[in-house]
Amino acid sequence: METIFIPILLGTAREGRQSEKAAKFVLQQAVSYGKFETELLDVRDFVSLAKTERMPENESSRWSKIMTRADGLIIVVPEYNHGYPGELKLMLDQLYKEYNRKPVGVCGVSMGPLGGARMVEALRTSLVELQMVPVRNAVYFSSIQDLFDENGTMKDDSYAKKLLVLFDEVLWYAKALQKARNKPLTSF
Amino acid sequence: METIFIPILLGTAREGRQSEKAAKFVLQQAVSYGKFETELLDVRDFVSLAKTERMPENESSRWSKIMTRADGLIIVVPEYNHGYPGELKLMLDQLYKEYNRKPVGVCGVSMGPLGGARMVEALRTSLVELQMVPVRNAVYFSSIQDLFDENGTMKDDSYAKKLLVLFDEVLWYAKALQKARNKPLTSF
Amino acid sequence: METIFIPILLGTAREGRQSEKAAKFVLQQAVSYGKFETELLDVRDFVSLAKTERMPENESSRWSKIMTRADGLIIVVPEYNHGYPGELKLMLDQLYKEYNRKPVGVCGVSMGPLGGARMVEALRTSLVELQMVPVRNAVYFSSIQDLFDENGTMKDDSYAKKLLVLFDEVLWYAKALQKARNKPLTSF
Amino acid sequence: METIFIPILLGTAREGRQSEKAAKFVLQQAVSYGKFETELLDVRDFVSLAKTERMPENESSRWSKIMTRADGLIIVVPEYNHGYPGELKLMLDQLYKEYNRKPVGVCGVSMGPLGGARMVEALRTSLVELQMVPVRNAVYFSSIQDLFDENGTMKDDSYAKKLLVLFDEVLWYAKALQKARNKPLTSF
Repeated sequence: METIFIPILLGTAREGRQSEKAAKFVLQQAVSYGKFETELLDVRDFVSLAKTERMPENESSRWSKIMTRADGLIIVVPEYNHGYPGELKLMLDQLYKEYNRKPVGVCGVSMGPLGGARMVEALRTSLVELQMVPVRNAVYFSSIQDLFDENGTMKDDSYAKKLLVLFDEVLWYAKALQKARNKPLTSF
Repeated sequence: METIFIPILLGTAREGRQSEKAAKFVLQQAVSYGKFETELLDVRDFVSLAKTERMPENESSRWSKIMTRADGLIIVVPEYNHGYPGELKLMLDQLYKEYNRKPVGVCGVSMGPLGGARMVEALRTSLVELQMVPVRNAVYFSSIQDLFDENGTMKDDSYAKKLLVLFDEVLWYAKALQKARNKPLTSF
Repeated sequence: METIFIPILLGTAREGRQSEKAAKFVLQQAVSYGKFETELLDVRDFVSLAKTERMPENESSRWSKIMTRADGLIIVVPEYNHGYPGELKLMLDQLYKEYNRKPVGVCGVSMGPLGGARMVEALRTSLVELQMVPVRNAVYFSSIQDLFDENGTMKDDSYAKKLLVLFDEVLWYAKALQKARNKPLTSF
Repeated sequence: METIFIPILLGTAREGRQSEKAAKFVLQQAVSYGKFETELLDVRDFVSLAKTERMPENESSRWSKIMTRADGLIIVVPEYNHGYPGELKLMLDQLYKEYNRKPVGVCGVSMGPLGGARMVEALRTSLVELQMVPVRNAVYFSSIQDLFDENGTMKDDSYAKKLLVLFDEVLWYAKALQKARNKPLTSF
């Protein structure tokens, strides 16, 4: 059986970002889920405004290496003014082929009750252009400032269950496409 | 080898619809392509305002039967005020499970130069919710009123080539997902 | 002082529509607000699939007459598969000039927790194309099936307050644009 | 008569950005139009990843001062993967009240035939949240690499005409809202 690798990307670089708690919770649940390899990536480590050019495809950047190895992606990201954070877009725009034919799940985060739902829609249109497969399921972390206690422990049991559904769907596509994605049309 | 079935749906019911020419052209090219079974569906035959309720899942409607059999879908549809025609949405909203884990390609149509590009984006967000896989490729029929001669023959050779790319990508996903889509996660 | 007229449009025709309760509540609150004239319009009375053509601009249809007189519009509408109901789009696509330079507020409705937020975003892109001014504020009726008691009385006090903010903003633009909207650029 | 000030913002920081030619052309046409004051702003001068926090509202940043004075905004920006450049979003997310009740026009730029049309739609949903008024008109600079000769002169006469329509509409709203925007609802 092939190993499946699905990293988790924290998509905001703002100081005081509440989404970091959500991203760590998603990582912890993914490790507990145990059916795919994962690691937490921080957009802060990958984006600088000196690098706004799309990198050459052959450049062995760390992000390129990770996504080349990855079978899918989970993005944890807040909504800013109904859109995605600029730093996430800068990071996503650096690669192209590395994303193709791989599933992607999005976890939205907001201080309000809607959990970043508008941003998830806006982001998906770009993810389709990157030839990713956005799975239908999303997890919406709403009122993020109230979700964790002072020790960083999630107070609402329902999120672990919602993440299971997301993990199952991203993993399903990761497995269904893992071998297929490098096969030409004529080989089926 | 399994047969692949990918119907083509004309998504406007307006009188004098220019998109009918585009849809017939897409059908003709798909038949010539020859790698999947197809047929042309007309939204006029499937939608009435008396049927705005989502049909019961077990109801053996014609649309349900077609999509149950289908391995993917191609939609040919004009842009009205940057969105999709209401009749197309009424038709799509009638089903749910029948669409799941099947690829979908969209051909936009417009009288202007943009070929329905805004509508394609808007439609994709709903197609993801229907658990379809929107392929990255789209064909944009712009200035539709000038694209065909009086015999209905396409005057611009580039569209046949663009359709080949779309067909290849929809077919690739149709094949990659055909057997997988009914497999549970544990069976991989 | 000029009278301001802002009708309220119920944008779903489905049988058993939960949104009817929300629309009636919005009407009742608007009457109680008392600062603009209003009436409740039902998409069922305006759309038939026989009329999918855009009507001639001079045709004195009832919808055209209402929007010609209107200074703004409030739409109460559920989200179906992250998009708007087809019947609402059919109705909106019938007119054009009648909408220009008038504000529009959207109240989303859903059975789930997000109150139709994705649909509101999708709808706004078409409302801009209709040359309307979508106000920032929206009211999201979430878990609509639990919001009203058996007498149809709203159980959650917060919605009346949210509607006040929406009314204020739509009314502000209605007043700011009422006289201006027929003035040519040179007359300022 | 009040002066109207509508700056033009170049929304990409990429090296080799083709959009710079479009932005300079828009500036030149706006100066020639002569009905509002303007200046060209470059996103490079306003965004750094060290400043991803929304600035305090009272901070007298240069961007805040400009938008406080502005009566509207024109954004010239390319489409990257169907979305907006991250650096533009970082810049827009820095302010809030300074944008309220001011019109905004978007000029899209692309190497392909669609002139950034998908990005314009995605951007507008965030501009509405910023309480701006996105005008219906947009200018789509398509095949940007072929639009200017070696001296940077626009080769296609139609763009000057399209910009006139955009300027007229942004200016109309700038004038209609200039005095109104600080008036409370009760003052009308």
